[in-house]
Amino acid sequence: MAEPRVIIVGGGFGGLSAAKALRHSPAQIILIDRTNHHLFQPLLYQVATSVLSPGQIAAPLRSILHKQKNTTVILAEVTGVDVARKCLRVRDADHESALTYDDLVLSVGTSFSYFGHDAFAPFAPGLKTAADALEVRNRILHAFELAEAEENPGQHPELLTFVLVGAGPTGVEMAGAIAEMVRTTLKSDFRRIDPATTRVVLVDMAPRVLQTFAEDLSAAVHKRLEKMGVEIRLGFGVDQIDADGVVGGGGQRIPSRTVIWTAGVKPSPAGQWLNSATDRAGRVRVGPDLSLPGHPEIFVIGDTALVEQDGKPLPGVAQVALQEGHHAGTVIRRRIAGQPAPAPFRYHDLGNMAVVGKGYAIIETAHIHRSGFLVWLVWALVHVRNLALANLRVSVFLQWVWSYLSDQRGVRLIVEHKGGADG
Amino acid sequence: MAEPRVIIVGGGFGGLSAAKALRHSPAQIILIDRTNHHLFQPLLYQVATSVLSPGQIAAPLRSILHKQKNTTVILAEVTGVDVARKCLRVRDADHESALTYDDLVLSVGTSFSYFGHDAFAPFAPGLKTAADALEVRNRILHAFELAEAEENPGQHPELLTFVLVGAGPTGVEMAGAIAEMVRTTLKSDFRRIDPATTRVVLVDMAPRVLQTFAEDLSAAVHKRLEKMGVEIRLGFGVDQIDADGVVGGGGQRIPSRTVIWTAGVKPSPAGQWLNSATDRAGRVRVGPDLSLPGHPEIFVIGDTALVEQDGKPLPGVAQVALQEGHHAGTVIRRRIAGQPAPAPFRYHDLGNMAVVGKGYAIIETAHIHRSGFLVWLVWALVHVRNLALANLRVSVFLQWVWSYLSDQRGVRLIVEHKGGADG
Repeated sequence: MAEPRVIIVGGGFGGLSAAKALRHSPAQIILIDRTNHHLFQPLLYQVATSVLSPGQIAAPLRSILHKQKNTTVILAEVTGVDVARKCLRVRDADHESALTYDDLVLSVGTSFSYFGHDAFAPFAPGLKTAADALEVRNRILHAFELAEAEENPGQHPELLTFVLVGAGPTGVEMAGAIAEMVRTTLKSDFRRIDPATTRVVLVDMAPRVLQTFAEDLSAAVHKRLEKMGVEIRLGFGVDQIDADGVVGGGGQRIPSRTVIWTAGVKPSPAGQWLNSATDRAGRVRVGPDLSLPGHPEIFVIGDTALVEQDGKPLPGVAQVALQEGHHAGTVIRRRIAGQPAPAPFRYHDLGNMAVVGKGYAIIETAHIHRSGFLVWLVWALVHVRNLALANLRVSVFLQWVWSYLSDQRGVRLIVEHKGGADG
Repeated sequence: MAEPRVIIVGGGFGGLSAAKALRHSPAQIILIDRTNHHLFQPLLYQVATSVLSPGQIAAPLRSILHKQKNTTVILAEVTGVDVARKCLRVRDADHESALTYDDLVLSVGTSFSYFGHDAFAPFAPGLKTAADALEVRNRILHAFELAEAEENPGQHPELLTFVLVGAGPTGVEMAGAIAEMVRTTLKSDFRRIDPATTRVVLVDMAPRVLQTFAEDLSAAVHKRLEKMGVEIRLGFGVDQIDADGVVGGGGQRIPSRTVIWTAGVKPSPAGQWLNSATDRAGRVRVGPDLSLPGHPEIFVIGDTALVEQDGKPLPGVAQVALQEGHHAGTVIRRRIAGQPAPAPFRYHDLGNMAVVGKGYAIIETAHIHRSGFLVWLVWALVHVRNLALANLRVSVFLQWVWSYLSDQRGVRLIVEHKGGADG
């Protein structure tokens, strides 16, 4: 009898964790992703703010899995699932093809949601892939260049205003990083403009920043951001984003040439592929073993899945995806080995962290609410440790030590595509 | 009286060197470049072959010059020169404007030349900017991904053939780097294809590789490349490049999906801006002080200039640009200070190097022809030492040590622009 074939779609935290759980299984594992790398998304904001290179937080999936001989990595895009025939439709550069599976794990993450306002997209890029981070980096650095080249000082305020739409972790971390950059790294690099006059505006419809954290931590972060010079506008619903800025909060306009979308995400279309029940956000409802009801061979994990625990849906964070991936992989592994299924999935919350500029972070666990410099050190260690490959750990660690000591940023690089010779 | 204004166009080796020579001058120095960074082009092939990140060989011009308070950096594109009015026309994102100058230094480098065959361009990208290197990196890595995803093994040879058109230093260095990568880094990363079956083909019309080097070194490199498995086709004139490969050498087709242009370059259009005498290649003829005949206030340096010494034109290499930039800057500095002009420009040749894979390089000076491992160590030290900023030196050095010891590459990253979520 041929070995069973397990297809895992998505090389993020969930998919990779599922693949690793199956490393000793007598099965043919196929990991499919659109990109050739596993991206460490929690540090993506550091790429967007010129601290790190994309290469420092992205590990080739093939490198991560090269010793795992039962696993093949395929770069392709999934276009649908034929649940009845147990068959996945994929497209690569050349053609469409179909792959049959015995077990399927879908861990396809999220994409931005402009909440029905797709017209905002060109004026407010989000932060999800390496290419997104480079685009945001280009825009931020370019704004300073345009201001420096602009001889009419009346235009400077608009060019030097950055608006972050959404005060969740990404918005808060971006706001802190930009506010810090203009007061340290860029301080003496311009002649016509003073980067310290930059406005960083963080807006959200919610009544407080970091709504998923406890109120005391949220208040501490609010205070810290204001101390760094970030303007925070809460209860601010965005009505319009265009080339001239943001309009919201009942008709106020914030003139700005650089708006960054740090708000909503929506799950990738796994629910549509499966034609299955989803919540309003589009997440697929799964059973206690993370499989699709009625389809024990299909697992949905990570940001794509709706898993409720103690009456609340689990949040869309890396840890949840990691633990779910491990669980789904274990269910499949035990089934192949003819062993009984493991106990139903249960998420163990190791705590949540967020970082606000240099030397300050917060942590919240079931028992601990802390903020400050020591938490920031823990944050840095945890994040370095969790990078997928040893060389990235060394590289990011050294880059951070250097940035910390020098107040410089390693990658202040505007790369315009379709560039030509210098001049 | 206002300070004289010196405009330098181009932040490459020549322009930066000219700006630095003027650092103590009582003048207003404006450095204009299309990009925000100085790119260390001799290592660009390492970005294209996944060893280094663009950020490791690119230093922000503002960082390099941030202590030089008499100098303003402007990100803009030059569109013309009004020689009679001493006025430079520039365009930035928003508008066109004009800048008057007292002295002008043009160091605007080169762009590719497909020798009249611009139709080759989409099928054979070249290597000049950071964006180019990322494009070439994407294509090389993508070729392996396509082959791995291709179930018809008949297609594999074409996908796994890389053709380098032009056996100068860039072609030789790229060929060596690709040949090495397939035999080490990628060795165990694929399941359907064997990267060691990759063909690397280096073609040139010339009768030998590295024509600008002496014959003995050229022969040594030829032997070394063949030992690494590179196919070399000399006297091979290219007639056609299309999506299926290269045709040349009297009708032979080399089927390949990845062709890289490592052949000709042409100077940027400084000759047209100035409406001045150029050689057939488009380089501007300058006098012994590097100024334009009849215009002592305009200097042309680097790859854009034709400077003859001992009856031969100086080559388009970094050292020539550096020394010319220093000379032009010195002429201007002394003129501003009311001092006599320096002696006519004379290039001091410190030797040329080229590297072929790991642990092998050649050097040629007036007295020395050497090749081998020790030369490679010297090559590595010289190149690390010449990076513009200290942090890049540390970063590249550590990356090389790690790559050398592990046979891995740090940045095997396909970044597709307009990417979305994983899947």
